[in-house]
Amino acid sequence: MQNKTLRKLWQQWQPGEPRDSRIAAELPPAPVNLQKFDPAAKPFSANKGKQHDKDTAAQLATELDGLQNIFYADRSFKLLVILQGMDAAGKDGTLRGVFGQMTPLGVRTVGWKAPTEVEKAHDYLWRIHQQMPGAGEVVVFNRSQYEDVLVPVVNGFITPEQQVQRYAQINDFERMLSETGTIVLKFMLHISKDEQRQRLQERLDDPCKHWKFDENDLKVRAQWDDYQQAYEQLLAATHTPWAPWTIVPADSKTHRNLMIATMLREVLGNLDLKYPPGAPAMDKIKVK
Amino acid sequence: MQNKTLRKLWQQWQPGEPRDSRIAAELPPAPVNLQKFDPAAKPFSANKGKQHDKDTAAQLATELDGLQNIFYADRSFKLLVILQGMDAAGKDGTLRGVFGQMTPLGVRTVGWKAPTEVEKAHDYLWRIHQQMPGAGEVVVFNRSQYEDVLVPVVNGFITPEQQVQRYAQINDFERMLSETGTIVLKFMLHISKDEQRQRLQERLDDPCKHWKFDENDLKVRAQWDDYQQAYEQLLAATHTPWAPWTIVPADSKTHRNLMIATMLREVLGNLDLKYPPGAPAMDKIKVK
Repeated sequence: MQNKTLRKLWQQWQPGEPRDSRIAAELPPAPVNLQKFDPAAKPFSANKGKQHDKDTAAQLATELDGLQNIFYADRSFKLLVILQGMDAAGKDGTLRGVFGQMTPLGVRTVGWKAPTEVEKAHDYLWRIHQQMPGAGEVVVFNRSQYEDVLVPVVNGFITPEQQVQRYAQINDFERMLSETGTIVLKFMLHISKDEQRQRLQERLDDPCKHWKFDENDLKVRAQWDDYQQAYEQLLAATHTPWAPWTIVPADSKTHRNLMIATMLREVLGNLDLKYPPGAPAMDKIKVK
Repeated sequence: MQNKTLRKLWQQWQPGEPRDSRIAAELPPAPVNLQKFDPAAKPFSANKGKQHDKDTAAQLATELDGLQNIFYADRSFKLLVILQGMDAAGKDGTLRGVFGQMTPLGVRTVGWKAPTEVEKAHDYLWRIHQQMPGAGEVVVFNRSQYEDVLVPVVNGFITPEQQVQRYAQINDFERMLSETGTIVLKFMLHISKDEQRQRLQERLDDPCKHWKFDENDLKVRAQWDDYQQAYEQLLAATHTPWAPWTIVPADSKTHRNLMIATMLREVLGNLDLKYPPGAPAMDKIKVK
């Protein structure tokens, strides 16, 4: 994705192109083996030490603030960033480290919890659609519609047929979003089982982090392999040209922020964003 | 549709079935010629005079109230009824005549107007999705997402490619709704140009109906043929097994109500709706 602009990707999928995603989702998914992705890898590092990467990430966050400002003024696009990952994978930390410098005016975060009774009475995309960004807006999801092909899959609440149906529904939904001007970027924060153990233990050892600990986290950790498999399946089935997944090695928090911020700058920087021109005679107005 | 239950139709489109609607929408649509549908036809009439049909329609409206009550208690389905038609085609009259006996608790109507600034900043299905029925709920749309493939098409605000793209997006959206338990019924109230002239004239002649008259109605009437063509195209492109269209001859108000009420009773009556059973020991409880 790094060598193509998102605008190009997006334009590729204007009308006239074959629309086969929904059908592709029904074929046996292309295999994704998460074990082949090293959670400790640092492909975006300059290899000049941790402090160097940290400084670069901080600088990028400031750059992203500027880009968000033009994005907001330009109003040609909407940006949806989805963060997914196991517990303690660093979703909150990414919000702070990558999006923390942007003004709250143009960026909004949504943390998804278990659905309410009213939400459960509707289709699972109903509450998701409501939180979509408007023109010029950036919305970041902490968890997302992908929870609906994780928890129910691992616990057998839905059949394999329903699972595949949901992949197709999500692909259709995201295609519509893309066709109507929303850039959809999906990041899977990939940590090792041992890194998770350390982070959960920290939450238990540090009284200031107790609020972050949930007993349910240990139950989910016990299902680690099942969740990894569910992730592998959804990554294969919902990686589309209009809403691509990126697997982010996330054992290093610094590298995780560096990588996501770099990719976001790449995407926003290639959109040819412009401040809208004023009225033609505006530069002749004298304020008296 | 009359000889199949909607439940069957709905089940037909469970996972595993080929999903080709989106692609079908791109092929040259099957021709629909509205001139072949007589707006004055009365296929659902008992041919025992107008009063007889009127009485039957009123009786059906009462039956529908009872069915809605079980529908609400059963909570297995959601029902979306879409009413479309030219100005003065009888959308308001259908709401009153067919749905007027149902309790407001379980039926909700939404009248769609031109989008607000906030709505325009989102995709055109954003505001539509928000108004979907929840489990056990009946929602009736007076106009709908189909306005987005009428006004912009007739006035050239979107390209033919965008028009076809929207058909596909709407088909995908309605399929997802159907797959997640929403029954989608779409009625096109088909009146003649002369019947519209008489009804609009009534609004001008009767001071009590002046509030219903909008100068814009005359502009739209001048584009009658273009709108009929846009309707023919959308009917062909978005008539799907999971969200079928019915063209309702609507010059006779009585027959219009009779036909829609009959079809609704057919659909609801074939859903095998049941009041949920109480807890097993409930019948042994003595209130003291």
